[in-house]
Amino acid sequence: MKQYAIGVDMGGTNTAYALISRDGTVVERGSLPTTGHISAQVWAEKLWESLREMIERNGVGEEIEGIGIGAPCANTITGCIEAATDLPWPSPIPLKERMERLSGIRVSVANDANAAAMGERIYGAAKGVDNFIMLTLGTGVGSGIVCDGNLILGSRSFAGELGHIYFEFAKGRPCGCGREGCLQTVASAKGIVLTARKMLEERDIPSSLRSIPVAQLSSKDVAEAAQRGDLLAREIIAFTGRAIGEACATFAAFSDPELIVLFGGVAKAGRILTDAAELEFRRKALHLYADKVRFRISELPDSDAALLGAAAMVTTVSGD
Amino acid sequence: MKQYAIGVDMGGTNTAYALISRDGTVVERGSLPTTGHISAQVWAEKLWESLREMIERNGVGEEIEGIGIGAPCANTITGCIEAATDLPWPSPIPLKERMERLSGIRVSVANDANAAAMGERIYGAAKGVDNFIMLTLGTGVGSGIVCDGNLILGSRSFAGELGHIYFEFAKGRPCGCGREGCLQTVASAKGIVLTARKMLEERDIPSSLRSIPVAQLSSKDVAEAAQRGDLLAREIIAFTGRAIGEACATFAAFSDPELIVLFGGVAKAGRILTDAAELEFRRKALHLYADKVRFRISELPDSDAALLGAAAMVTTVSGD
Repeated sequence: MKQYAIGVDMGGTNTAYALISRDGTVVERGSLPTTGHISAQVWAEKLWESLREMIERNGVGEEIEGIGIGAPCANTITGCIEAATDLPWPSPIPLKERMERLSGIRVSVANDANAAAMGERIYGAAKGVDNFIMLTLGTGVGSGIVCDGNLILGSRSFAGELGHIYFEFAKGRPCGCGREGCLQTVASAKGIVLTARKMLEERDIPSSLRSIPVAQLSSKDVAEAAQRGDLLAREIIAFTGRAIGEACATFAAFSDPELIVLFGGVAKAGRILTDAAELEFRRKALHLYADKVRFRISELPDSDAALLGAAAMVTTVSGD
Repeated sequence: MKQYAIGVDMGGTNTAYALISRDGTVVERGSLPTTGHISAQVWAEKLWESLREMIERNGVGEEIEGIGIGAPCANTITGCIEAATDLPWPSPIPLKERMERLSGIRVSVANDANAAAMGERIYGAAKGVDNFIMLTLGTGVGSGIVCDGNLILGSRSFAGELGHIYFEFAKGRPCGCGREGCLQTVASAKGIVLTARKMLEERDIPSSLRSIPVAQLSSKDVAEAAQRGDLLAREIIAFTGRAIGEACATFAAFSDPELIVLFGGVAKAGRILTDAAELEFRRKALHLYADKVRFRISELPDSDAALLGAAAMVTTVSGD
């Protein structure tokens, strides 16, 4: 069993990478710009140059299990980045093939939410759990589903778009996907701001949120106010939690998970969010599941979550 | 690769069994009463006696890959029948363990819908398909989900209770599970009858269904009238199909299937049902899935579906 993996977190502006040991320690990290290269091939060559130097510096050439790359619109089945609108090159980009040819090391690519789920399973709150769902609550709502010990991919690697399931509580809220009523329109950072604006207008109770100009109000403001005990902010978070709990009652009937992990900016609201979610889940779920699912906040450290998640895509679960 | 499997379909009154060859041919079949035995152990001994005689008669003792048993409330993970209210013995019944001890042959147990899904994959409409969802539309609505080539079980073998997901189109319809609005309340045989009664009352158009006393109206009547061209009956089936299509738009976001197979009494409505389902699916699904999912009616022969499904639980997919 090899002792290290490399995690790469490819964003539209910057590409971060790290050498990660089996226990999840970041041994060394670095980054390079994603932009400014004439082609994806040149970017890949620069990236491999940096990785090779890092491997040599640490004398771990024989001990690399693989390179995991998390990227928006990355397809695990094809190994390509597909239709990524925020990258400066045309899609699809055959990332897995190119990096394997350059490095001679096994490469796995995944979209952010799937990488996060694997990260949680190897290094975080879902360690040793074979059946769980990871919800990434950020600008959008993504998900990674682990069932019977496997990350679910589906016929074209598009499994787990749980942010785009219709729910009545989101009725009338337009979604970026062109439809309306998606979970994402409530449980994302933007969704929380929408809920906050609505509640600030409808409710008469005082709140520290009223001192923030409406146009500047962020989900972080709401989460922080809630943690300071602001009643209206707590109500906004609780509404969001209830929506997540009801959504999870639907998800449970699909994959019978034992754990739901909440990750991302919105999850910063912590226990107020998970308590509301768990309570609503118990009210709404089929009796088979009602008392059997725990809700937890991600345990991946914020700054390294994407790198750990990417590395986890190539890390063998101990015991395998 | 062994050439035969045994399928057992255990019901509350009767237990059917069959010797099935790799290509899905029923070589021999038989049955014994489920009731009338003093204990589950005695029933299991009688069953094994019958199976042993059948195996000997056909001279295939060395060629049996396994025994698959489909039963209500059967749990594939524990190998037990759990909380089956229509069996004459106390649950749980450790069926797998008992039958393996008696026979010395590998035994697998599964609930009806999961067995049906495996049957469809080995012998039916989903042959060679690694990502599909089977909906069994009968007295209730069950489901079996195959994703990335595996039948999804979940943490306690309760994955795939898709009949009990809440949908707005079923709002207000009470479900046997104690909640309301479950898909089952619309897409089951009983659901169709409810829809029929409502439409017969609300609509003014003539229909052959009006000659049947309301209390005697069955989903079979509706399906048959629809196939004869009865307009109101066609509308009832189309409503049911649209409900199924909308539900499948939700299911697709979970497992990215390429195929939905409809099975059971309600599926007898055929193309009228699948066409309505597919059209509504395209309207409601996220663009990623909208044009990528086919709807088909089961190809398992009615009389043998349960036996083939049970046998499929122990049949290795060729190529494995």
